[in-house]
Amino acid sequence: MAMQLTRAGEYAVKSLIYLAAQQHDARVMASEVATEENIPINFVRKILESLAKTGLVKSYRGAGGGFTLGRTPEDISIRQVVEAVEGPLALNQCLTPNACVNLPDCPMSQVWIEAQRAVEGVLERYSLADVARTRALRRQILND
Amino acid sequence: MAMQLTRAGEYAVKSLIYLAAQQHDARVMASEVATEENIPINFVRKILESLAKTGLVKSYRGAGGGFTLGRTPEDISIRQVVEAVEGPLALNQCLTPNACVNLPDCPMSQVWIEAQRAVEGVLERYSLADVARTRALRRQILND
Repeated sequence: MAMQLTRAGEYAVKSLIYLAAQQHDARVMASEVATEENIPINFVRKILESLAKTGLVKSYRGAGGGFTLGRTPEDISIRQVVEAVEGPLALNQCLTPNACVNLPDCPMSQVWIEAQRAVEGVLERYSLADVARTRALRRQILND
Repeated sequence: MAMQLTRAGEYAVKSLIYLAAQQHDARVMASEVATEENIPINFVRKILESLAKTGLVKSYRGAGGGFTLGRTPEDISIRQVVEAVEGPLALNQCLTPNACVNLPDCPMSQVWIEAQRAVEGVLERYSLADVARTRALRRQILND
């Protein structure tokens, strides 16, 4: 049983962690994210443009343009990033809204709903700032 | 993002809840499980035979034969049923053993591992007896 984070979700998380790791909200070109995080450039552009519409990312045009986070990394949870790309979490297909007419009577629904809330809780508890901090620490260890 | 419980996993859970709901460990034919739980008979046979190898189910041959749970329903967790059919939980593909060489350095690994443990904890906390009890209560309410 695997929760399928799509490639788009994975790339979105990676891209925003990269933005979160920048000092002083430096604007970053999509091409830099693509190179540093090893993501196809078209994918990065698509993701960042689409996240700009949600407010998680800010897009600046023209010379000196690029991307920054739309809020401080402390104020963006991993859950928000994942759901912005993937839509609401559904731990089990039967929990997808309107997927199952028997859901109210299903004896397993309580178990799945509780498991899903547990995942949501963890993804909500971690912010981009937390993960960027871990990333910096690991790089430091690797470089020491 | 959806955790994909396979059809086999879903049918295994349903079949064992049905066995758990029987009074006095009554032996049940695969055909009865198939009819009552609306699962293709070949699927039920395959699942119950395969779970018999794990000890979660006991198979009795010949006249008066059929299937019972291999242990009391209090002693079988939903996690055990799901993992017997689906293999170990992997909330994210990157947590599948040996799937990612970068896992030890990945800044997201802690988040995914914690989320996965949260799901495992919930599925472990519920036994077949718990779910069979919920099932009985809901049926009683529907019949009142």
